[in-house]
Formats: sequence, structure tokens, C-alpha cells
Amino acid sequence: MNTDVAIAQAHKLEPIADIAARVGVPQDALIPYGRYMAKVDSTALPGLEAKGKVVLVTGVSPTPAGEGKSTVLIGLADALTAQGTKALVALREPSLGPVMGIKGGAAGGGYSQVVPMEDINLHFTGDFHAITSANNTLAALVDNHIHQGNALGIDPRRITWQRCLDVNDRSLRSVVTGLGGPANGVPAQSGFTITAASEIMAILGLATDLADLKERLARITVGLSYDKRPVTAGDLGAQGAMAALLKDAINPNLVQTLGGTPAFIHGGPFANIAHGCNTIIATRTAQKFADVVLTEAGFGSDLGAEKFFDIKARYGSLDIAGAVVVATIRSLKYNGGVSKEETSKENVEALRRGVVNLERHVDNVTKFGVTPVVAVNLFASDTEAERAFLRGWATERGIALAEADVWAQGGAGASELADLVMANLSEATSRPLYDAAAGVEHSIETIAREIYRAGSVQYSVNAQRDLATLKENGFDTLPVCISKTQYSFSDEPSVLGAPEGHTLHVRKLIPRTGAGFILALTGDVMTMPGLPKKPAADGIDIDADGVISGLF
Amino acid sequence: MNTDVAIAQAHKLEPIADIAARVGVPQDALIPYGRYMAKVDSTALPGLEAKGKVVLVTGVSPTPAGEGKSTVLIGLADALTAQGTKALVALREPSLGPVMGIKGGAAGGGYSQVVPMEDINLHFTGDFHAITSANNTLAALVDNHIHQGNALGIDPRRITWQRCLDVNDRSLRSVVTGLGGPANGVPAQSGFTITAASEIMAILGLATDLADLKERLARITVGLSYDKRPVTAGDLGAQGAMAALLKDAINPNLVQTLGGTPAFIHGGPFANIAHGCNTIIATRTAQKFADVVLTEAGFGSDLGAEKFFDIKARYGSLDIAGAVVVATIRSLKYNGGVSKEETSKENVEALRRGVVNLERHVDNVTKFGVTPVVAVNLFASDTEAERAFLRGWATERGIALAEADVWAQGGAGASELADLVMANLSEATSRPLYDAAAGVEHSIETIAREIYRAGSVQYSVNAQRDLATLKENGFDTLPVCISKTQYSFSDEPSVLGAPEGHTLHVRKLIPRTGAGFILALTGDVMTMPGLPKKPAADGIDIDADGVISGLF
Repeated sequence: MNTDVAIAQAHKLEPIADIAARVGVPQDALIPYGRYMAKVDSTALPGLEAKGKVVLVTGVSPTPAGEGKSTVLIGLADALTAQGTKALVALREPSLGPVMGIKGGAAGGGYSQVVPMEDINLHFTGDFHAITSANNTLAALVDNHIHQGNALGIDPRRITWQRCLDVNDRSLRSVVTGLGGPANGVPAQSGFTITAASEIMAILGLATDLADLKERLARITVGLSYDKRPVTAGDLGAQGAMAALLKDAINPNLVQTLGGTPAFIHGGPFANIAHGCNTIIATRTAQKFADVVLTEAGFGSDLGAEKFFDIKARYGSLDIAGAVVVATIRSLKYNGGVSKEETSKENVEALRRGVVNLERHVDNVTKFGVTPVVAVNLFASDTEAERAFLRGWATERGIALAEADVWAQGGAGASELADLVMANLSEATSRPLYDAAAGVEHSIETIAREIYRAGSVQYSVNAQRDLATLKENGFDTLPVCISKTQYSFSDEPSVLGAPEGHTLHVRKLIPRTGAGFILALTGDVMTMPGLPKKPAADGIDIDADGVISGLF
Repeated sequence: MNTDVAIAQAHKLEPIADIAARVGVPQDALIPYGRYMAKVDSTALPGLEAKGKVVLVTGVSPTPAGEGKSTVLIGLADALTAQGTKALVALREPSLGPVMGIKGGAAGGGYSQVVPMEDINLHFTGDFHAITSANNTLAALVDNHIHQGNALGIDPRRITWQRCLDVNDRSLRSVVTGLGGPANGVPAQSGFTITAASEIMAILGLATDLADLKERLARITVGLSYDKRPVTAGDLGAQGAMAALLKDAINPNLVQTLGGTPAFIHGGPFANIAHGCNTIIATRTAQKFADVVLTEAGFGSDLGAEKFFDIKARYGSLDIAGAVVVATIRSLKYNGGVSKEETSKENVEALRRGVVNLERHVDNVTKFGVTPVVAVNLFASDTEAERAFLRGWATERGIALAEADVWAQGGAGASELADLVMANLSEATSRPLYDAAAGVEHSIETIAREIYRAGSVQYSVNAQRDLATLKENGFDTLPVCISKTQYSFSDEPSVLGAPEGHTLHVRKLIPRTGAGFILALTGDVMTMPGLPKKPAADGIDIDADGVISGLF
């Protein structure tokens, strides 16, 4: 079987200028990065109305079997393009750390990919590195401020701003910096996150323009003063330099799918400790040139989609016209209790037990005012009996469902899905789930009840203290971003299917004053991955002619 | 007075494709990065002979008064272009850390700049970030190898590979990583260098093509095993992934000067712990399109120029046809013993005392087989009496000298210098100073005697032990890269002028097996700068239209 990189390399790409021209992106707004990638200068598009209809692609609860959400999205886009619909893709950028770790690449798969995949996976147009620079410049300015006299009275024990790198490196999770004597600054316990987990990634994702970006950067809380008042990046005067470092990163990146659909790939925040969507600027820019914009949110509807509606659509004033819930027969069987290895074997009973997970995700999406269609991403191991069961289940419940075979067939494998999506587009009726002005406890309770189907919310002693501080500082009317395991609707990863009546445990509340949300932690969160025993990097190579291998 | 950034922003740039076309760079070898920057695909230039004559620009010993070496080089190039000579510039890339720290920008100055200066100073085409990625991927692979069972028996106490970031951050000089328990790896004392100080920067500078790059990466020593054998990046199988991360960084970057001269800005190794020149690939590529290539080496002739001839020209098989020694009247007065503040006042006596420094640098360059011309970079404070003294000094000694006023006049201020450089071009007669095969002690002794004019070389106990290890491992016939203060010919920064008979103290010898040289330390070397009390970042800003201010 062909690898993703081999399929991508065998494809003859069109010059990005031609791709851009086809959907009407003005050439003078196009900033080329090589021949097949460009940034679109978002300030050079005055007078263009963002009128394309936005369709959100979400999925069932992730399982080790894999769901292929991006792959379905890309195949769907190519099906629409083939049908003559002016469709654009808006997706997140892959992170370099996992490329070297376990994944080896993340830009769709098979014949449903965005290309040039090697470039997209390796540095791309440098956005992540610009975020790393801005993040670490701020960290250096904080430590330097303390070293040079500490006029703001920053408590070195209460610095919350961490450094970041786009690498999987467990050794950087917990470090002590500033050792070696007075010339090397003030010793401090600290750590690095992966760049995707930096608050600046979330800020870039939610900023509506350069001025808004700079304001959000200024509002970042870097730590507390000795009298326990929040100290911001603005107090340090860091926002100008940071925004200058992000001057190119703010412009969305344009590439193409294997089917020739233009694709904006921009921003890459995590879907647990951040909101998990591509940038507002990319989605809005895509709306200026497309009739239909296909965009994605990370993990299942309980994480990415909820944050998409409650954080991204809220800040970006986006109306959502449709949604797709991606499921696989394997992942539903896994949710029905069979092991990963057993998901390749026919088991209609397990599918029947597990389909409740899909049903819950469909139901969740309707709570935001959008009726989704279901896309079944087919695998070779799916049997006719299983497929028939799922189709029957959908008919019975009045749910629109289409099968798609996008890895092997690309757009040709998603034409039925494309018809279904177009038939189900609605006028703007989408809405957030809660009124943030009612306070963060109300927001959390609403999400817990409506989306997670929890019976109660419990705050730890720490979280209660955090709550008091949030109210004291006037932060508690920001939208909430709940960090929860992606594997379960509950906060316990092993509880699959569609649990209800459980208790949501809120352990910590952190104001992300720059991004503009309150991060609610419900468990341990790993913000710096490690490398596996055999890292993907081992297999990555480049020959003397510059041809790359080992990216999957 | 106009700032550098204001002058640069007022300039109307030509599209980089036009700049490239003017000197014959084929359009299909041009990889655009925006409208005014490009990379040149060095593999797409088969059959083109590198026949342009290379002129090295070096300088007197650096002083706080500033010499303006790059500014003179750029003005000289623009003068040659104006005269109809097909001239190209090859320079190092600026580092982002100092841009945010003390300098605020580094791409020439005044009317002798390379542009777009904001982009060149902020991320440019991403080369430094690619080096950071490759460097830190290797660090993660080393620590992961130990964490996952340590089959190679790497001694965690003897890891010499450090992480890097392109930031000025003293708090990262000395850190402890891997804290927080077994899941976070093995605790280790470590540190970060600035990216310019990474061995990968030196490797990129000395690689002749992608295959050579990968071989050099594989030869990097990351530390010692428990039985004290060197462990390399190749032992970890890391070179393929690292070379893939550097696939774009290896191609030279093309921009333009304010006078419309094409300029390759590529690579940025330090001139003390590395060889201090732009890449071999950039210089060779420039030679394919120019009649004259103007290139620079860091600091004075004792550091950058010596390494240029003995390391870069050796590995790159470069013949050098001419050289320029840049001096200022202020810096020579400083070398004559007056304080920085007093250098603006007329003082012919101080100039007479300090001109010995210039004379020594001129003499040094001739030892590599090239007779240099002297460029006096004029400042407003220079008096007629001082200028007359210098001209007389040159005539007396038969040294070709021209004054240049490049900051204020650009190329128009360097036409006499341009004539002089062209008149003094020689056929290929340049040569390295020593035969590396005679061993590192011989190399060090030769440089100390011929260039530093030391009376003796003293090895510390540590250095003697290092020497034994080098010989044991067969590394001692690599060329030497001496790290010494740039302010003095001796290893004592306060000894200005032209000292002789001093003792050179070698404190440590480190094999840079990837770059292919032995690093000889003669004093403390700072490889991670800190920020000053008022960092340049404080003054850097960007407005809502994307216009940057505060870069000087």
C-alpha cells in the first residue's frame, strides 16, 4: 500500500497562484512561500464580505482505532469541488513535535490530503516558530525584569508563564532555570510546553485582526506580584515586540488538496487546554472566497465542537450553516466495549452497544442550533452487516447519514456525503450554549449538564480558591474552556459509550486573560508530549536530491 | 536623523524576481518567500561554474565606537553596481536574540542596508528556527534514548549536546532538566545556547551540499558513553530527520541592497566559538552569477578572517582575490588609548598610537596570500587633520587606502573604494596559514605566532587532557577554531593596539566533529546573551496596518 508521503509526492501540484486565482483571491494579496504555498494578506481584502456558509466537521469520541476526521473533511471538499461547488477548506496546522514522535505527519491521508505534505508537516510557513519566539521572548522579558531590579514586584515563585518549543521532549516538562550564580538571573522552577499548548497559539486562533492580536497579547497574565496581583505582558510593555514577531503568522496559509481545492491551514491550538480550531482569521478569509467553508474542531463534539461554538464562533461572530459528525464502524465497536485488536472483526452487537456514542454526539451538535449529518468513514474491515445496521439506525432516528471512502478514493468516495451536506445547509441559526455573563460556574454547569450529561459538578478546594480569585479580578465572565479527557463524555477516560449522571470534577481554574477564556482543568493535562521508544524521527530521511521519506 | 528602519521603509523595493533576473538567476531556481525575498534552489543550478572573484571584508579590532563593516561592504557593493560591475553580496543572517536585546536590527545601516530589513531581522526565511528545531530534536532524541533503556550506554553526566533558542535569555544558561519523577526522564544538568552558537549553525555554514550536510550531522558528538567513548548523532540515527528539518535552510536567501545589488544572506555562526562567516553554499552560489562577490568575516582579522581562510575557504575550496580592512578613525583612537566618549574629539596623537592596530590587521591578511586595501569608514566627527594623517600613513607604507561615506551616501560614498578594490584584484593566490595534518598543537602555535604575535602557548591541565583525548580519537588533525576575545590580539580584552610576545592560554579543547573543527577556548565564552536593563524589545512596535517601528 502506498504511504501518504508517496501518494503526495506522486501528485502534480498546481502553482498556488493558479489555485488562488480560481477562487478569486487577488494576486496582490498573495504572499508566496515557495511555489505551492502562500499566505493571504488579510489586510489586503477590503470590501469583501465573508458570506460563505460554514460547515463544521466534528466526530465521535476518539479511539485508538482512529476516525480520520481531517481525511473525511478533505475528501468531502474535493467531492464538492468536483461537483462545481466553490468549496474551501479551513484546518489546523500540524505540530512538528508529534511529526518526530508518533504520527510522522498530519495533513489528511491517502488520496484525501493537503499538499505539499512534507512542507506542511515540516516548518510550513513558520507560524509555530514565530509563536515559539514570541512566547519565549516574553519569558525572557519576565525573568530579565526580575533580574534587573523587579520594579513590578513579580514573585519568582508565582511566575505562571512557561517557555515553549515545538518538540516532543519530556525532559523539558519540569526544569529549574537561572542556575549558576547571580549573572544568570533568579533561579526558578519552571517548564516548557509544546508550542501548540502556548496561550499565544490560542490568541492567534481567536484574534480578529492585528490590533485585536496586540490587545490580547497585552492582556496575558505572566504571574503574580508579591501582593498577589496579576502581572500582564502589557505591564512589561511586551505586546509590541511580540506582535511584530507575529506579523506574518497572523496571515492565513493557503495550500491545496489533492483534488485541487484551496485549503487554509492556519493555527493549531490543542482541543483540551485550548479551543482546538483553526484561526478565526482563516475561517473568515475562506468565507470571502467560498460558497461553502469546511472547517474542523478537535476531538469529539464534547471538546472541539463545544469550544468551536462557545469560544471561536462567539469571538469570531460566525454563523454555522451545517455540521458533519464523522464516525467509523471500528470506533463505535470500540465504544461498544471491544479491544482495539478486535475492532477489525465483524461484531454487530458491539456496534449496537457503541452507537450510543455517535447518537450522543449528534444530539450534542443540535444543542448549538445545527442539525448535523453523519459521515461513516469506511475501512476495508467494515462488513455489509455492520454497514446495514448503521444505515438502519440512522433511518430509524431520522438522521441523515452517508458513507464515505476517502482514503482510497479521495473526493470520488464522498459524493453522496457532499450531496447530503449541501441538502442540509441551513440559514444561520447557530448559537452558543451559555451566556458567559452569567459567570463561569453557570457556564461549566451548563456544559456539564447539556453536553457531558453529568449529574453534578464538584469543585476541589483549589478550584474554589481559584473561583474566588477569578471573581475578585473580574475574570469570571469570560467563556470557559474545559480540559477533559477526549475518550469519554465524563472526566474518566475508561468510561466509553454515552455515560450520564456522573460527577464532573473541576480541579483548577486558570484565567487565560490573553486568549480570553477560563481554563478549567478536570484532570492531569500533559502539555509536553514525550517521544516513544522508536520515534518517527528514526525513519525520516532525505536523499541527496532532497526527496523526503518516512513521513506517514 | 532618520533611523535605519525609516530609511528602509521609505525605499521602494524591486520584486526579487527582477533582481534575480538581472544577474541571471534562472526563475525556476527561485523559491519566493513573499515578494522581496527568495531562496535559490542550489540543486537547480547544474553546469554553472563558480567563477566570480571573492573579496573578503574584514576589520580592525572591534571597539565600542563601532566600525560598520557590513555597512561598508554594502556601500561598496552598491558602488560597484553603479559602476556597471556585476557584484553580489554574501553576508551572515542576523540573530533574533540581539534584535530584541541591544541591537534592534543588523543588516547594514543608513543608506547602505539590505532590505526588507524588518523581515531579515525578524525570522527572515526561517533558517534559524529550522536550526533550532534540528538542534532540539537531537537533544530530545538523546534524552529519550536514555529514558527508553539507554542501549548505547550514554552517560547522562557527560551529555555535551545542549539545547538552543534564538533568544537572549540568561536564565537558560544553566538549567536542570528531567525533574518531576520517572515519567519525565533522567534529571541532567544542562543549558541552552543561542541558536547562532549551535554546532548545527556551523555545520550549515560549512556544508557543501545536502549529502555533505547529512554526513556532518551524523558526525556530531552528543556526549560520552559510560566507557568514555564519543556517542554521535549518527549512532542515534538522527541525521535523516535533522537533514529533513534543514531541507529549506540549506538553500541561500536572496534579497537586495538599497542600491539594488542582489545579496545572499545565509547562515550566521559566531566568530569566536565558530567560524563567523556566511555559508559556503551562499558564497559559491553568488560566484555563479557575479563577477565580484563581496563577503564578510566576523570581528577583526585575528578571528573572522583567520577562520575564513583556514576553515571556510579550506572546506569550500575557495580562492580569494581581494580583501578590504575596514577601520574608523574613532576605533583607531580608541585603540590608541582614549575612552569611547573621547573618540569624537580630534586627537591625532591617539590616532598615531592606535594605527598600529590597523597595520597589524593589514599585515595579517597578507599572510593568507592576499594584499588588502584599507577602507576608512568616515564619521561626522572625523577631522581633516586626522584624515590627512591616515592617508599619509598609508602612502608611507605603500598601503592602498580609500575613504568611504556609506551610511549617509550609500554607494555614492564608496566609488573611490570601489575603484581601489577593482584595481587590486589578484589571481588566485590565497592559502590557509597552516597544514591541519600536522596536528592541532601545530595549528594553534602557528596562529598564535603569525596572527596573534604571541610569544608562547600555554595549555591548562584540562586542555592537556583534552589534547590526549583528541589524539586518542583521531580528531587532532581537524582545523582549529580558536575562541578568543575580539578586542585584543591577545587573550586579554584590555590589551589594545598591537601587542606582541604575550602568552596564549588554551583552557579547553572541544572537538566539533560535525562542523569539522577543534574548538580551542582561551577564556570564558558566553554562548547565551542576556537582555539589558532596557531591552530593545521595549521600543519595538507594530501598528494596525502592520508597519513596524523601533528596529534600529
